[in-house]
Amino acid sequence: MTPLPSDIEIARDAQLRSPLDVAQDMGIDTAQLEPYGHHVAKVDLSTIDQLADRPQAKYVVVTAVTPTPFGEGKTTTAVGLAQGLAKEGHSPVLALRQPSLGPVFGIKGGAAGGGYSQVVPMEVLNLHLTGDFHAVTAAHDLLAAMVSNHLHHGNELGIHTVEWRRVLDINDRALRAIIEGNGGPMDGVTRQSGFDITAASEVMVILALATSLADLRERLGRIVVGWTKAGEPVTAEDLKAAGAMAVLLRDALKPNLLQTLEGTPALIHTGPFGNIATGNSSVVADRIGSRAGDFLVTEAGFAADMGAERFFNVKCRAAGLTPDAAVVVVTVRALKAHSDRFQVKLGKELPAEMLAEGPADVEAGAPNLRKHLSIIRSFGVQPVVAINAFPTDHDSEHEVIRRIATEEGARVAVSTHVAEGGQGARELARVVAEACEEETSFTPTYELSDPLATKIEKIATGVYGADGVSFEPAARRALEQYTERGYGELPVLIAKTQMSLSHDPNLKGAPTGWTLPIREVRLAAGAGYVYALAGSIMTMPGLSKHPGAERIDLDEQGNVVGLF
Amino acid sequence: MTPLPSDIEIARDAQLRSPLDVAQDMGIDTAQLEPYGHHVAKVDLSTIDQLADRPQAKYVVVTAVTPTPFGEGKTTTAVGLAQGLAKEGHSPVLALRQPSLGPVFGIKGGAAGGGYSQVVPMEVLNLHLTGDFHAVTAAHDLLAAMVSNHLHHGNELGIHTVEWRRVLDINDRALRAIIEGNGGPMDGVTRQSGFDITAASEVMVILALATSLADLRERLGRIVVGWTKAGEPVTAEDLKAAGAMAVLLRDALKPNLLQTLEGTPALIHTGPFGNIATGNSSVVADRIGSRAGDFLVTEAGFAADMGAERFFNVKCRAAGLTPDAAVVVVTVRALKAHSDRFQVKLGKELPAEMLAEGPADVEAGAPNLRKHLSIIRSFGVQPVVAINAFPTDHDSEHEVIRRIATEEGARVAVSTHVAEGGQGARELARVVAEACEEETSFTPTYELSDPLATKIEKIATGVYGADGVSFEPAARRALEQYTERGYGELPVLIAKTQMSLSHDPNLKGAPTGWTLPIREVRLAAGAGYVYALAGSIMTMPGLSKHPGAERIDLDEQGNVVGLF
Repeated sequence: MTPLPSDIEIARDAQLRSPLDVAQDMGIDTAQLEPYGHHVAKVDLSTIDQLADRPQAKYVVVTAVTPTPFGEGKTTTAVGLAQGLAKEGHSPVLALRQPSLGPVFGIKGGAAGGGYSQVVPMEVLNLHLTGDFHAVTAAHDLLAAMVSNHLHHGNELGIHTVEWRRVLDINDRALRAIIEGNGGPMDGVTRQSGFDITAASEVMVILALATSLADLRERLGRIVVGWTKAGEPVTAEDLKAAGAMAVLLRDALKPNLLQTLEGTPALIHTGPFGNIATGNSSVVADRIGSRAGDFLVTEAGFAADMGAERFFNVKCRAAGLTPDAAVVVVTVRALKAHSDRFQVKLGKELPAEMLAEGPADVEAGAPNLRKHLSIIRSFGVQPVVAINAFPTDHDSEHEVIRRIATEEGARVAVSTHVAEGGQGARELARVVAEACEEETSFTPTYELSDPLATKIEKIATGVYGADGVSFEPAARRALEQYTERGYGELPVLIAKTQMSLSHDPNLKGAPTGWTLPIREVRLAAGAGYVYALAGSIMTMPGLSKHPGAERIDLDEQGNVVGLF
Repeated sequence: MTPLPSDIEIARDAQLRSPLDVAQDMGIDTAQLEPYGHHVAKVDLSTIDQLADRPQAKYVVVTAVTPTPFGEGKTTTAVGLAQGLAKEGHSPVLALRQPSLGPVFGIKGGAAGGGYSQVVPMEVLNLHLTGDFHAVTAAHDLLAAMVSNHLHHGNELGIHTVEWRRVLDINDRALRAIIEGNGGPMDGVTRQSGFDITAASEVMVILALATSLADLRERLGRIVVGWTKAGEPVTAEDLKAAGAMAVLLRDALKPNLLQTLEGTPALIHTGPFGNIATGNSSVVADRIGSRAGDFLVTEAGFAADMGAERFFNVKCRAAGLTPDAAVVVVTVRALKAHSDRFQVKLGKELPAEMLAEGPADVEAGAPNLRKHLSIIRSFGVQPVVAINAFPTDHDSEHEVIRRIATEEGARVAVSTHVAEGGQGARELARVVAEACEEETSFTPTYELSDPLATKIEKIATGVYGADGVSFEPAARRALEQYTERGYGELPVLIAKTQMSLSHDPNLKGAPTGWTLPIREVRLAAGAGYVYALAGSIMTMPGLSKHPGAERIDLDEQGNVVGLF
């Protein structure tokens, strides 16, 4: 149809299959499902064992070049690819993150794909789904209440510095920095604290990385909420909070089964922030999905230097799963933006000259694509370039991208999944299937036994392309402290801007000749990683002057309007 | 069984019916149900219209004498009564509030009844259920974020005083009073604010009192978040927040169908605080329940002066339903406590001499029971006394209560529902059924057209037994302001201690010769009432030194332990 109907119009017209039928396609027993409304079901974790004898699916992660502020369509491409694989006669399963309520009511709108490549039911997915995010908020804030309560009742454990903040699944900048305990002596201890968005909670990452309920319980216990004056960690286990947290999260650990517009199974589960957290959907969903079809398609947040690096180095290691191929989503507009010849700003229209036919501009931005393909290759994984086609693209521009991909030894396809659904992604599906037949030898960037600083340096030089890393003295000291306390064998995660391969959002293309500055490091002992901050990272978004929430309402029939 | 197994042991041994079967007993179509897991379903609101031609059930509210700090078993009695009515051949429906997570992890444990009179599944009920409380938290805090955001972006509406706080469903005293916006200029406006528990949210009351999705949407729009310098109200509609809030609450407005241990239908829905809010379950659940059986049994928070007064004056008016009988739960220990001869303290064992046979002590506490019966009569409703029997009771003590009830013209029954389930409540069921056959003429305490101050005075003198009311000047001024701005015809609600008929928790029995002091009044324009504060009311509980959460955990099979 031209013009394309809006996402919500397309979603509302969809004929949904029963989740029981969808599960049957996956070889999952009805007894393993708990229905949540008519179109969603939770899948019991015992399914992992039940499917253990089935063959392993090809494991495909969808990542991207360094994006413009608009994003380049990783989610739509993942959905479209799954639908395209089905059209090609395969039995794919899709595994994606659950959207956060904050952005839904902020600027971004829904996050269920777009056009004819969406996960449905769209309103359910974008609102509470089965309440997993709310369970994370409750578990996180119960621990926070128990920390504050412990201080109030005399601080027997001798907590000297508190590092555990609170979370809400809402964009509320006024809560970034608060003073709590601002009442009388019966109203808690006065101290500085603050709120992050729920997607930034360590509990969210724990839910995403846990391999079983028992593993979840243990990880919760290992959370470090603060430190004594002698530099000893104080954990959620020390506070006797981890059991109650696990109880709150018991159902949230079960993945949610939804479907694409074309009825492809979609496991939607957890939603860790892409910046200070892993930015990938859950391990348990992937362990189910990897035995419930012949292809498992998942997505990693931001570009290949961010989400895909964490997918390979952290998630695949935790899951014990080996990737077969990585799809790098690229758009004409993204490569043009990397030419650094145009000003692209969120909330503004693209400059008109950027929409004119400009294969040379695409070519000028190509180093970014080449670098991301080499990042994928550095892990021993097959890259595939997916050109996410826009109506404003020109054939000559697509040809440039095809040529660059081929020069880099990567398969490439143009995909029109937004306008045409799975039918538009059949070429992509075919080349992805071909790539998965190649011999791979998956190689993480670092060994867990490497020193923490070395791990950070290997990511900075081996993935980002930096010359080296400079550590602030406090960051060095913290790395030493973590190592002394037994956290030295954890993987690391670098929190930096997603708008550049470097830490400077203004550096486009594939920057060289720069050093990554690490100003601070922090510990996520429950999730199981150390994270290093390269620049200031926003963990609680704000709302714009006229946020999306102002346009969202119910119509007279009780339908949701304004969610797009 | 002697001794009685623990609540959670009894609950876990229960053989649950399918919610589809339970609904069938109620005359509700399967198509009206949305399953949430295997044992809970949401009931669509169109059921109200579908059942409109069916006969009206007898409407019975369970209330109590002024309780000891342990509570006197209103919930167990309501559950037992419903089970007893079923044993007597009736088709009862039970309608109760959903428990709050705060007390579950605080001191109180679960709130699903007790012994052989419980609502099940107990863990689901006491944890997230279907996420309705989380939806209230999200909607409430979205509005709070939009208020703070409006201030940050220039305060076009000229909000001078903000009255909208934030909520979390957790006991966290350190959040009672906070300073928000404590970061830099991009981190919001610095001001004093704080958090209440979700059960104290006006949004929770709106959900409880709304008669339809359209009514919910309108009530949300009427919420007053603050005032301009000129004394004009600023509403959620003015902030364009009410539509998004309604979207978040759309599913939460559908009542949750559970069951008692004996398979009786139980609609569990909403949970407004008993103090500053209405303390009653939802109007929509009662409108469904009142056509889905021959008896609808519900409970009102705290004693007859508190929850039942609000049930009659606020909820029944909003629902358009007329009560037939009110069960006043009484225990031997409560009347002994009202003798003022014993010290009863939360967290301490009852004094040994209180457990000795003491009919004279019961007699000495009887004025409290007599007063509550006269409160029920003042509404033109038939009272029934339910003696909630304890193993430590003596027959002579029950006899005193029977005699007092009879002297007051009330039916009376001893109920052993905790130890024996519905079988133990058959006598109670019979006398309740008899009472419902009496002619009644329901009469609220005041007319909506009475001035606000008069309404408060009529409750204080006509219900509590005060000589009169003294208003602080600020309270008088606020009542005048509310009247000028068009809120004069709202009902009123008085927030006072539940531990006495008066505002002083130390005054036992039926105090006389006292004046009710109103220090402050507030407006809940969306919920649709003005509330007057008589004493300081805690809207955010704290945790004890060793809260219940410390004992709650998962066992090796993944079962919840420590919830009792």
